[in-house]
Amino acid sequence: MAQANMDAYELHAENPTYVYINAFIDELQRSNVHNIVICPGSRSTPLALAIAAHPGLKAWMHVDERSAAFFALGMARRLERPVAVVCTSGSAAANFFPAIVEARLTHVPLLILTADRPHELRENGAPQAIDQLRLYGTHVKWFAEVALPEASNAALRYIRTLADRVAALASAVPAGPVHLNFPFREPLTPGPLADQPLPAEEQRDPIAWHGRPHHQPYIAVEDAPLGRLTSAACAQIIEQLKDVTHGLIIAGPYHDAALTAPLLQLAQTLGYPILADPLSQLRSGPHDHSLIVTGYDAFLRMDSFIGQHEPQVVLRFGAMPTAKPLLLYVKRYADCPQIVVDADGGWNEPTQLATQMVHADPALFCQDVEQGLRQLGQGHAVARDAVARDQAWLQLWLRTDRVTREALLTALRDFPDLFEGRVFTELSTLLPEGATLFAGNSMPVRDMDTFFWGDERAVRIVGNRGANGIDGIVSSALGTSAGSRSQDGEQEQEQGKTPTVLVIGDLSFFHDLNGLLAARLHQLDLVIVLINNDGGGIFSFLPQAAYPEHFEQVFGTPTGLDFQPVVQMYGGAYRQVADWNDFRQAFQQGVQSGGLHVIEVRTERVSNVAMHRQLWQVVERALRDQEEQ
Amino acid sequence: MAQANMDAYELHAENPTYVYINAFIDELQRSNVHNIVICPGSRSTPLALAIAAHPGLKAWMHVDERSAAFFALGMARRLERPVAVVCTSGSAAANFFPAIVEARLTHVPLLILTADRPHELRENGAPQAIDQLRLYGTHVKWFAEVALPEASNAALRYIRTLADRVAALASAVPAGPVHLNFPFREPLTPGPLADQPLPAEEQRDPIAWHGRPHHQPYIAVEDAPLGRLTSAACAQIIEQLKDVTHGLIIAGPYHDAALTAPLLQLAQTLGYPILADPLSQLRSGPHDHSLIVTGYDAFLRMDSFIGQHEPQVVLRFGAMPTAKPLLLYVKRYADCPQIVVDADGGWNEPTQLATQMVHADPALFCQDVEQGLRQLGQGHAVARDAVARDQAWLQLWLRTDRVTREALLTALRDFPDLFEGRVFTELSTLLPEGATLFAGNSMPVRDMDTFFWGDERAVRIVGNRGANGIDGIVSSALGTSAGSRSQDGEQEQEQGKTPTVLVIGDLSFFHDLNGLLAARLHQLDLVIVLINNDGGGIFSFLPQAAYPEHFEQVFGTPTGLDFQPVVQMYGGAYRQVADWNDFRQAFQQGVQSGGLHVIEVRTERVSNVAMHRQLWQVVERALRDQEEQ
Repeated sequence: MAQANMDAYELHAENPTYVYINAFIDELQRSNVHNIVICPGSRSTPLALAIAAHPGLKAWMHVDERSAAFFALGMARRLERPVAVVCTSGSAAANFFPAIVEARLTHVPLLILTADRPHELRENGAPQAIDQLRLYGTHVKWFAEVALPEASNAALRYIRTLADRVAALASAVPAGPVHLNFPFREPLTPGPLADQPLPAEEQRDPIAWHGRPHHQPYIAVEDAPLGRLTSAACAQIIEQLKDVTHGLIIAGPYHDAALTAPLLQLAQTLGYPILADPLSQLRSGPHDHSLIVTGYDAFLRMDSFIGQHEPQVVLRFGAMPTAKPLLLYVKRYADCPQIVVDADGGWNEPTQLATQMVHADPALFCQDVEQGLRQLGQGHAVARDAVARDQAWLQLWLRTDRVTREALLTALRDFPDLFEGRVFTELSTLLPEGATLFAGNSMPVRDMDTFFWGDERAVRIVGNRGANGIDGIVSSALGTSAGSRSQDGEQEQEQGKTPTVLVIGDLSFFHDLNGLLAARLHQLDLVIVLINNDGGGIFSFLPQAAYPEHFEQVFGTPTGLDFQPVVQMYGGAYRQVADWNDFRQAFQQGVQSGGLHVIEVRTERVSNVAMHRQLWQVVERALRDQEEQ
Repeated sequence: MAQANMDAYELHAENPTYVYINAFIDELQRSNVHNIVICPGSRSTPLALAIAAHPGLKAWMHVDERSAAFFALGMARRLERPVAVVCTSGSAAANFFPAIVEARLTHVPLLILTADRPHELRENGAPQAIDQLRLYGTHVKWFAEVALPEASNAALRYIRTLADRVAALASAVPAGPVHLNFPFREPLTPGPLADQPLPAEEQRDPIAWHGRPHHQPYIAVEDAPLGRLTSAACAQIIEQLKDVTHGLIIAGPYHDAALTAPLLQLAQTLGYPILADPLSQLRSGPHDHSLIVTGYDAFLRMDSFIGQHEPQVVLRFGAMPTAKPLLLYVKRYADCPQIVVDADGGWNEPTQLATQMVHADPALFCQDVEQGLRQLGQGHAVARDAVARDQAWLQLWLRTDRVTREALLTALRDFPDLFEGRVFTELSTLLPEGATLFAGNSMPVRDMDTFFWGDERAVRIVGNRGANGIDGIVSSALGTSAGSRSQDGEQEQEQGKTPTVLVIGDLSFFHDLNGLLAARLHQLDLVIVLINNDGGGIFSFLPQAAYPEHFEQVFGTPTGLDFQPVVQMYGGAYRQVADWNDFRQAFQQGVQSGGLHVIEVRTERVSNVAMHRQLWQVVERALRDQEEQ
């Protein structure tokens, strides 16, 4: 939004409510909130009309508040800045809850703006009134009950400050959702009110009424992230690492692109492999991939491997990785020192095994430790010798990784039927530079972990891995697509250039069918690969499968739905593919023509498990052969 | 469920978790919880398997937790006893929130059973773990974190007591939702555990382990409702009423069938008309209808009426009525004494005008006041004379009501196009005795108020009028249908005998499309009359309509959806009707053939407002003509 335009722009208001809310909305825009998702309602009229009238804001209408909030989540994560979401009073606000829970856990900045009845219409049987105070409990970073609208200088200073404050707070470490509850009295429309005249022009503090000059925020908020560790703490960690040759770096899900280079440098200096979760920023991109291990979900299942190769230290960054075999491997060597670096000051440590928790900027942490390690050697003839390294350890991991991936690739080419995991090896070659790959819960993200190893092409990998719910995935992916459009501008949005691709299971797709409305309302581009095994595929992998009596009823839960008509109802194209050639064609066509495309890959839950198990056997054989060579 | 069967029945359990959860589930069943809605998940496995294995329980599977909870709400309201709803850990639980909010406000007994991770996997980055403690804040009656499963005598006494306690608590005045959060450790399956052997048979307290003999609950809980007022308080009210001739009784939404007869008797003795909301129990049924006024939503819009007829006292029962004209009429005579009787000890009084709040059993209240009034006259020659009555006042209301209804009926027969309100006059003649009519928010319930006046046929009228949300309506109606089936037994369920009919707008229908899955999974009968005006029809009635610039974008919100394919996806029949003959045919066919039927009535938002306004003019003319006669 050009700043010049904004300077010239003045929101016109004829009554106190609109003076106040226009100031709030205008201030949000000055604080870099440019996208607001609105659900229709009456009580929220002042917010909705102020947003719609503001030329610097994009209003995204949505009807189902649950989908709307996930849509905002997807967009905010993509844009790395707050997106606001507005609803009316009553149960509408309760529908935001699932997305708020997810935003809290994955540190996505959301501004939840709920309209409410004023105090005299609360807790006394008035219609569409529920207790909205602290509605989301511990699942928001902050809650504030906003004062009733008023067109005084003091009230306008307050509301402008509040807007800047919450826009900043949502993004401050750890980023997350913030909830403001707005009581509104009738009339809710913008006409002048005889009994509430606005103060005369000369009584108005121009900055309170019109904001700071040059479209500056009323108060600019600067939030530093966590900083660097003390040198004593750093020295202790360096001391701990310098003689350890059998180390591992585990990179779980993280967003911070600035971490990648220092983390790679640290791994290089230490001679440790990096086990990189798909939602770390390491699997795909133009950085050095030589130390990155991505096939571990498969080979850490092999007792022959994990029983023989004990780590001496584990350095963990980001959230807990997806792969259960990795967790079990770490648990197997429970005495191994484990250092967890948590950039959000949180506690990403469910194993109860870690020996050290580091709350610091992880990029600075890597730099400081790496530099310290190198300096150790400066008195020596060959500087690098001061750090112990074991090439055999590093090569073991890299070779095992390579052999695993080759074995998997070869084996799954031979499956006669469509295999769920192969979607990801196919996408590995199909996705263009700049694409976004969104994997749903609960099976797709696991298959992505096992089968999408990435390469130098920059592919953005996304998932809802806070609460790991199957809810809201379609909307989150559409919000990602919408965010890509806003972020990259119209130029980059040339059809097929930077597609967003969602891989999702049928239960999860069903759960958020309503989310598809956004594709229709806002002409969004999304290719959905729908893995349809008619029910909850993951349960067939779990111990529950050993109890067949009630299995299909309470776990399998087949719905028997044919999704084609509903996708077409939303204006999407639907194609069930027969084989992988068909899949590739459908994918290319979907990406090139734009809009909503659903590519259905029909699979079958029981054979899917069998094929996965067959692959583990293939990997086991390949590793044994390799060892014997 | 035959008690003999239950006595013979013993849940088999091989590990402590299942001993404990089986006891809990068994005790729920003994406490008259017979229906449990289950959403699939892994962490909730012990609950799901224990429920599925219990022969005295009906497990209703559902996939979308939001719809599932509304389904449970509809069933619990229909059955007038608690229904439980089960989900796994994580955001699944957050999806229950909208239905819980509604259950809290409309006093529907729900048991919310959420599975959770155990303490060592909380707030530390473990997957699918969110803070579930007090997740629903003030929107449940009670929350308890359940102790980890254990197969000790003490633990089993605790869990049996807890089950009986919450089943009773959910139904106790005021009824509402209760939340239990169950932490479960792995393994989640029922196999024996070598490291957790069960205590030897002789160590087991048989009552703790197997429950009380003869299938009695471990602790039977008796909850008295609110009782009667003190005689002093009663006397004061009698004194207040006895000389007042121009009184009104307003019956808002209430469930308590026992109130109807005493309320009618009180009205008779006082000579006051009863303005009966559609969700009161008064519009339809075999009781005396001679004092019941149902056309007030129309005639209280007429200044000629409300300006001339001032009430001297208002007695109000139940929740606030739907009709805004009634509210405005009461507000116009702000000094009129208003006595509000709230059976739930709540505060159903958003007008801030009431002079007296009565927390008492409303049936006893009516009896006591009525008896007191009659006793006043016992010293007199003619007993009834002690209470002042004004037949003209009563006749004014009854005549106005009759003229209004006749005028509306005649006028809407002349509309050339399909008119939304006429759906309800048509249903007035079409609905058979024993039918259930569910009206959605926000326009259908208002049109029902205006156009469905009821008669001696017993038609159950239902709506979600707590938070008045447009969410969850389809599921609530399907839950009502499911509840009718359980309640009435298979006999009464003969096709077409006691149909459930839902009238719903298109935005609300869209909001809960997922709810339709229940119809398919459980072969439920429901006739849905879908009033499709492509967007939010109510906004065209509101002041927002005067601001056309952003009206369609933020209020009208047309989706342009053709719902036929999605209804067919769920196995439903779909028919768009061209005229009222067509409507009647489609309705009869839907009722007779059973299953899911959607009858689409296409209307248009702007002309709909025009037709409503035309009708008010017709009513005004008819009342004027009447006055002039």
